[in-house]
Amino acid sequence: MERIKPRTLSGFAELLPEQQLQFQAVMATLEQVYRQYGFYPLDTPVLEYAEVLLAKGGGETEKQIYRFSKGDTDLAMRFDLTVPLAKYVALYYPQLHFPFRRYQIGKVYRGERAQRGRFREFYQADIDIIGDGALDILNEAEIPSIIYRTFQTLGLNRFKIRINNRKLLSGFFQLLGAAGQAGDMMRIIDKLDKIGLSAVQKELGELGLAPAAIHELCAFISCKGETAVILQALQRYRGKNELFDTGLQELTTVAEAIAAFGVPEENFGIDLTIARGLDYYTGTVYETTLLDHPEIGSICSGGRYDNLAGYYTDRQLPGVGISIGLTRLFYILNEKNYIDSSSVPSNVDVLLLPMEGAMHEAISLSTQMRDAGLRVQIHYEKKKFKAKMAYADRLQIPYVAILGEDEIAAQAVGLKNMATGEQQTLPYLQAIAYLQKAVKAATGKKIISDPIS
Amino acid sequence: MERIKPRTLSGFAELLPEQQLQFQAVMATLEQVYRQYGFYPLDTPVLEYAEVLLAKGGGETEKQIYRFSKGDTDLAMRFDLTVPLAKYVALYYPQLHFPFRRYQIGKVYRGERAQRGRFREFYQADIDIIGDGALDILNEAEIPSIIYRTFQTLGLNRFKIRINNRKLLSGFFQLLGAAGQAGDMMRIIDKLDKIGLSAVQKELGELGLAPAAIHELCAFISCKGETAVILQALQRYRGKNELFDTGLQELTTVAEAIAAFGVPEENFGIDLTIARGLDYYTGTVYETTLLDHPEIGSICSGGRYDNLAGYYTDRQLPGVGISIGLTRLFYILNEKNYIDSSSVPSNVDVLLLPMEGAMHEAISLSTQMRDAGLRVQIHYEKKKFKAKMAYADRLQIPYVAILGEDEIAAQAVGLKNMATGEQQTLPYLQAIAYLQKAVKAATGKKIISDPIS
Repeated sequence: MERIKPRTLSGFAELLPEQQLQFQAVMATLEQVYRQYGFYPLDTPVLEYAEVLLAKGGGETEKQIYRFSKGDTDLAMRFDLTVPLAKYVALYYPQLHFPFRRYQIGKVYRGERAQRGRFREFYQADIDIIGDGALDILNEAEIPSIIYRTFQTLGLNRFKIRINNRKLLSGFFQLLGAAGQAGDMMRIIDKLDKIGLSAVQKELGELGLAPAAIHELCAFISCKGETAVILQALQRYRGKNELFDTGLQELTTVAEAIAAFGVPEENFGIDLTIARGLDYYTGTVYETTLLDHPEIGSICSGGRYDNLAGYYTDRQLPGVGISIGLTRLFYILNEKNYIDSSSVPSNVDVLLLPMEGAMHEAISLSTQMRDAGLRVQIHYEKKKFKAKMAYADRLQIPYVAILGEDEIAAQAVGLKNMATGEQQTLPYLQAIAYLQKAVKAATGKKIISDPIS
Repeated sequence: MERIKPRTLSGFAELLPEQQLQFQAVMATLEQVYRQYGFYPLDTPVLEYAEVLLAKGGGETEKQIYRFSKGDTDLAMRFDLTVPLAKYVALYYPQLHFPFRRYQIGKVYRGERAQRGRFREFYQADIDIIGDGALDILNEAEIPSIIYRTFQTLGLNRFKIRINNRKLLSGFFQLLGAAGQAGDMMRIIDKLDKIGLSAVQKELGELGLAPAAIHELCAFISCKGETAVILQALQRYRGKNELFDTGLQELTTVAEAIAAFGVPEENFGIDLTIARGLDYYTGTVYETTLLDHPEIGSICSGGRYDNLAGYYTDRQLPGVGISIGLTRLFYILNEKNYIDSSSVPSNVDVLLLPMEGAMHEAISLSTQMRDAGLRVQIHYEKKKFKAKMAYADRLQIPYVAILGEDEIAAQAVGLKNMATGEQQTLPYLQAIAYLQKAVKAATGKKIISDPIS
């Protein structure tokens, strides 16, 4: 037979079983936390009408999209989960109840140039809260508290959620008399961390900004420190521009509520350089960085927008949301040794090894064990005992249960702890209780440990 | 702004939030059961090299496939989960441990003619056990016991897993001296349920089969009844054909082990008409039907195969597996009123309604509640009290917690049971304990109830 070389497309993640278990555990944690805040699961198609997905038009994104025809239908694979959400809310508006909270963890597709740590098929994990006509500012404060609980629950501690407010920024640019250049200015100040203050000054100069305005803007973005300090420093601009004042009020409300949510100061701060693109966000914006790896950039970003679905409907649907690039985050966490491989319980709690003539008894015992909630695999194959033990070892199965004639006569099973080598013979019911206890002790560990830097 | 009409491709399922919750609950049950038998989760890309996916070549399937080029790469969307499994096992063979057990619940794509209850994007839920060179027959008995536990756990009782053995069938055709027409004969007898015995006889005649052979074959497939009865009846063909004898031995072993697994006779039986295509399966084959809706056909099918990945590798990788067409099954269960909508707990356990001035206290209470594992939503919006209660009602949230000045003074919360209308004021910690108990009582219900027919 002519053989085809088995291979996977470059940029398309495919994990080995043990890694996949870890990835599933991360996804399960995200789901669990999102659901604690009342978000509904959503699952939209991977394929949509190209016209619908590209309603917004799309420059860079459009070039990367997987788009093709089947019959006379022009199709595209989704490149994010926001556009499908907009379509969904516009389409099912009469059947939805607002505020509508949804999470979606799903694959998206971007035909980017393949490179290390960049993916063409990757999971995004999004949450959004959509209002009908209006959406209270406090939703903007809840979002960072969800990010906080998510990462805490995963086991990540050394991260910082940084927020800013787009009205504050835009109002400030108006104050400088440079509202027309807001886009360019945001793009430049966004780079502060990467290129430093003097390079930012230079670029602002090239933009044709007056030296006084540059000076004022640099003073503004250099305003750093604790939340209370920044909010205090911003007072001096107050009363000069309405949009700025609204932004400052929003930022203050959000910062106070975030504290009420119990997010500690070390995991949260105002950062006046955060802008997050131009045309979409209208209020609070978020970025999240790993304290020990700022070079990675934001691992969880989003913000408030006033009009989710303007391309599909004339209803005003304001919202706020964040997105985690999950495949990339998982790749980074692995590469930087954040994943605690001992934290994810083995896929099997106990491997049953029936000796000659004990098969039907083993089958019946396995059913009893599963009824008790245990995850059980019977080794059916004709292999040497040693090979079966090696299999348990390689799969990191914590217990092996041996069942032979003697054990059956005693209605007991030989239970071997694979980590310690200890072995004991326990009656069926006691063995089950013992294993249940062991399983319980092994679960609930956090997946991530901040590595010692 | 010019608006695009929001719409979803025909044949692409998209559920409303309440239905999506049900679908998630079904998927979670499948995962839980599969993991109880030691299956690892697997997640392969939706897109693959067309050459890899179509290695087997493929008639009908090839016409339905979503295939396109990007740059100079010929791509295809997966049309099942078996071919990606074959690729995966061939590609990662050195890093896998055999027997390798994996489940995959994922979307697949087939551009079929769109019609009611048929989908172009749909979930399949597959489990397979792959051996390296050999795989014990008992794995073939375990598979139906997994199907049984899966449906039982979902709450489905009135179903029957029907099994047959391909060696038995092929051996019998050899006995009839009609081995060359095995394919056509299988295709015809597969239709017995639909077209009846006399139509089967007619079609077999048109095939040119001798009347004596037709008579013998019809006697064979008419052999129905309890497992022991059928196995007894099959004894009379024994000793005449080696392949038949092997098949009969396998069928007997599998049937006995299935009983040892605790699958009751009413949910399981031998059906000699089941053939399941020609070129792939080599041992036990399975189909599963709803007793009250046989017209739907099989809802869970599969079988034993001797060579999973022959198109990619010269290693012999025998296996056994089954697949559930999950999107279609969910559609049918809904249509036939099998889904018990009261079984899936509300997405939110408690809706917190803070009165004027109580917002920060409500936020702090919500954090306490989530720390206790509750799913909590705060209603932040500026709406009338009545509108907020109506929101809780429409989302079927079982409890509303009201927090105002008086409650805060007493460090208590007004808890309203939305089903009974009962209201009581409880101190924070007591309210949390009360809600935890209520949540526990509402969970663990089975999703499916067999409708009264």
